[in-house]
Amino acid sequence: MIDSIVFDLDGTLYLGEKVVEGAIETIAALEAEGYRIFYLTNNSGKMRKQIVDKLNNLGFPAHSGNTYCIARGISHYLVEEEIGPIYLIGTNDLRRELMSNEIVIKEDPGVSAVVVGIDPAFSYQKIAMALDAIDGGAKLIVANGDSSYPIENNRRLPGCGALVAAIVNATGHAPDVHVGKPNTYMLELLCREHGLSPERICVVGDMPESDIRMANNFNCQSILFDPGGNFSDFSNMKARALNEIISLLKKGR
Amino acid sequence: MIDSIVFDLDGTLYLGEKVVEGAIETIAALEAEGYRIFYLTNNSGKMRKQIVDKLNNLGFPAHSGNTYCIARGISHYLVEEEIGPIYLIGTNDLRRELMSNEIVIKEDPGVSAVVVGIDPAFSYQKIAMALDAIDGGAKLIVANGDSSYPIENNRRLPGCGALVAAIVNATGHAPDVHVGKPNTYMLELLCREHGLSPERICVVGDMPESDIRMANNFNCQSILFDPGGNFSDFSNMKARALNEIISLLKKGR
Repeated sequence: MIDSIVFDLDGTLYLGEKVVEGAIETIAALEAEGYRIFYLTNNSGKMRKQIVDKLNNLGFPAHSGNTYCIARGISHYLVEEEIGPIYLIGTNDLRRELMSNEIVIKEDPGVSAVVVGIDPAFSYQKIAMALDAIDGGAKLIVANGDSSYPIENNRRLPGCGALVAAIVNATGHAPDVHVGKPNTYMLELLCREHGLSPERICVVGDMPESDIRMANNFNCQSILFDPGGNFSDFSNMKARALNEIISLLKKGR
Repeated sequence: MIDSIVFDLDGTLYLGEKVVEGAIETIAALEAEGYRIFYLTNNSGKMRKQIVDKLNNLGFPAHSGNTYCIARGISHYLVEEEIGPIYLIGTNDLRRELMSNEIVIKEDPGVSAVVVGIDPAFSYQKIAMALDAIDGGAKLIVANGDSSYPIENNRRLPGCGALVAAIVNATGHAPDVHVGKPNTYMLELLCREHGLSPERICVVGDMPESDIRMANNFNCQSILFDPGGNFSDFSNMKARALNEIISLLKKGR
């Protein structure tokens, strides 16, 4: 029986700096019904603490235990698999979180893995370093394959997947590990750390290709949050408003 | 009947700064037999004049008329198709050659095409600008899809194709035009400018995927220069040494 709800963040609980209508109330109501709440994001540019702080500032009862992000996932993966030193393509925030987990980051190609997250300082030189490292036998560990993400005024910015595409093209080497959605690594970690299993989990998110695909890959339930009604052909449980989630879950019980 | 030989440069006539054994003598002998010689390269980082100068310095009788490179091809394409202004991802040398052909280059997304060549100053911001421009309707015109190129000590550097891959991934938009090999645009231009046709041309180059594929796409003859004997399975006319070319051509006559 489902007792744990895993929420996507950007596009589901908030949009940029704005809380999505009904998000705080829905989470409070779910907690009052006894559901455990988790926060899970493909954001690879921020430290876990920054994501928790943002959620708290917006009014969500998040804490470091129930919040999963790429920095947390990659840190855990590298420590668990004893991979290092690494060459990092990513933000300074991701770098700080990895270093706080005692992962050794080097600025030369003599590493056992190249780790790629979103990086506004991505450059030709970084592709060249990744190529050297991977030609020398390093693994390629990437945050996610997200091609772009929406910003204001109907514009988009390149996502981690665009940076990964350059490295894959140059090296001819596909990623060895995708830590983020739609892969299930972060959900597996969540289950291990909280004693959960797929049949107890429902994922709520706005992206069929990442949130719902991850849930399907994990064989757990999911609800597509589709406020715009853009996915009418999509044969999944769907909510046009977040406050529909409780009744959908009760029906599912 | 074949009377015009189109040579690839890097890997065929020279390796870095070194002339390939027999290259100068073979070209002199071909000219003595009445063949016309052309030089054609996928190098997108240099001006035509720089490529001619390098050939001359190494001892090849190249001149601006018989030397084809990406800067020449893209300039011609943009002028012919009346495309502009453009956003350029490329070297300062490519920029200079385009500007000398009166192509307008802008540093904002309000352009009719994004042009991509090799660019050691490639960056996240350039991918973002290309994304904005292409989302706004700009075409994507690329030098070539070369993923990497060899340098000293068995190392490689990222090629134009790696930069293109990032842009294609971010935008979801495939290149509208590939100017370089294995596409035939530069060969078509060569034929138009010199009154030639495919049955009169033989391409000589060391790369099956670019030189020989271009020749096949153009329905012209080709000889794979395979000094290392690496392509024994490849059912094409092959030369282990450049001085074998004349006898191969005579056999073909």
